[in-house]
Amino acid sequence: MVELRDDERIDYLLADQKRRIIQSQSVFAFSIDAVLLAHFTYLPLTRGKLIDLCTGNGVIPLFLSKRSKVPMTGVEIQERLYDMAVRNVQLNELEDQIDVLNEDLKGLAKKIGYHRYDLVTCNPPYFRTEDLDKRNNNEHLAIARHEIYCTLEDVLKSCSELVKSGGKVSMVHRPNRLAEIMESAKEYRLETKRVQFVHPKRDRESNIVLIEFIRDGHPEMKVLPPIYIHDDDGNYTEEVAKILYGEEGSRLHGSNSKKL
Amino acid sequence: MVELRDDERIDYLLADQKRRIIQSQSVFAFSIDAVLLAHFTYLPLTRGKLIDLCTGNGVIPLFLSKRSKVPMTGVEIQERLYDMAVRNVQLNELEDQIDVLNEDLKGLAKKIGYHRYDLVTCNPPYFRTEDLDKRNNNEHLAIARHEIYCTLEDVLKSCSELVKSGGKVSMVHRPNRLAEIMESAKEYRLETKRVQFVHPKRDRESNIVLIEFIRDGHPEMKVLPPIYIHDDDGNYTEEVAKILYGEEGSRLHGSNSKKL
Repeated sequence: MVELRDDERIDYLLADQKRRIIQSQSVFAFSIDAVLLAHFTYLPLTRGKLIDLCTGNGVIPLFLSKRSKVPMTGVEIQERLYDMAVRNVQLNELEDQIDVLNEDLKGLAKKIGYHRYDLVTCNPPYFRTEDLDKRNNNEHLAIARHEIYCTLEDVLKSCSELVKSGGKVSMVHRPNRLAEIMESAKEYRLETKRVQFVHPKRDRESNIVLIEFIRDGHPEMKVLPPIYIHDDDGNYTEEVAKILYGEEGSRLHGSNSKKL
Repeated sequence: MVELRDDERIDYLLADQKRRIIQSQSVFAFSIDAVLLAHFTYLPLTRGKLIDLCTGNGVIPLFLSKRSKVPMTGVEIQERLYDMAVRNVQLNELEDQIDVLNEDLKGLAKKIGYHRYDLVTCNPPYFRTEDLDKRNNNEHLAIARHEIYCTLEDVLKSCSELVKSGGKVSMVHRPNRLAEIMESAKEYRLETKRVQFVHPKRDRESNIVLIEFIRDGHPEMKVLPPIYIHDDDGNYTEEVAKILYGEEGSRLHGSNSKKL
């Protein structure tokens, strides 16, 4: 049996009745961004391997293990979150598929090898440290959200060093930084190939962007149909309910499901 | 009275019962891209001045003159189209507001002055010359659509040289080249500030992108709610019908309006 620490709780991984996940509001709880990234990501199904940077409590590998049997590695710099990710792997008996490293993504390829992965996924900190609100200083959350241990450039550099030539990098970020993301990615030979914007509602600006790069790819990109999180009544749209709860679940949970 | 040449015809400028426009299927006829660009563009209303590169038959200044009294200059390299633009200005008695130049945009600032404009608009050729279909070689259309006289980089360089620091550049292009556009713009100190994607239908990839840059702007951008051209039945969406025909017109033209 896996132990719980402090204010940790065990949730079901959304509609998944098999997978469960340890989280904590004060340390790390996954957001809809992680769900959307896992849904957006193209994934090798039987061959190759993937690595998830800034893995937190391991939510992305847990989601992706539903769709693929390939070996997965999660990387987390915060020991407290790394520990949670390790227990999440144990809790779901996925030790044979998912490995977790307590490492800094900066310089990681030097330790574990350059260009070994077919896919790198990452849900990095979105905010610059200038925007850090020092009055509300929860260390774990601050590190997950702000570029304290790694900047956007550090993340893209590491992705580029870990992924194979022709391999994919999938990332979720904020659209206000998209120009910077694409420009910096290009410097590290990551060509933007597929972009999907997520809007809170039909008539609102996008607040989440999903991006797929291909290392050494041909510089030509696609912009997918957008995703709207909520309908005009403030309920999840049918599309998002399906992503969150699956075909079945969306009918059960539908418009009364609690907000992520 | 303005003369018509060859297969030219006079159309109303969409719902505008005052403005009319000379066009020709074999030389130049405006597309929905121009209408969307004119609609997307922020515009100085009473002060400042603007310049429209690759103006063709002058459609963008004609549209913008409905919304603003500032002086406008159209620039067209093809003499045949320049001539059409001049007659369009005459036809609409806008000689006091709109000026047309038969010039190459490359090196234009050197001739007419650097950083004099508050706004530069441009609906440039979208396609690389590699993609030119030599079997179907209509010279005027080929030049308007392919980068024969100017590349994307030429266009962005010229925009950057013409616009004031802090001034805006509005452009319409294809999303598959967005990474290249934003990267090249940045080299010319044009920061991407506002982007809107246009999709042919709700569930289709974007095929038109509207972009606003600010010269020497702060590198942070917005992604507006998307525009869908057609609904599931293949009719113009309400939003697009309003852009094309106005509030009144959209009710009259509505779903039976002919395709642009």
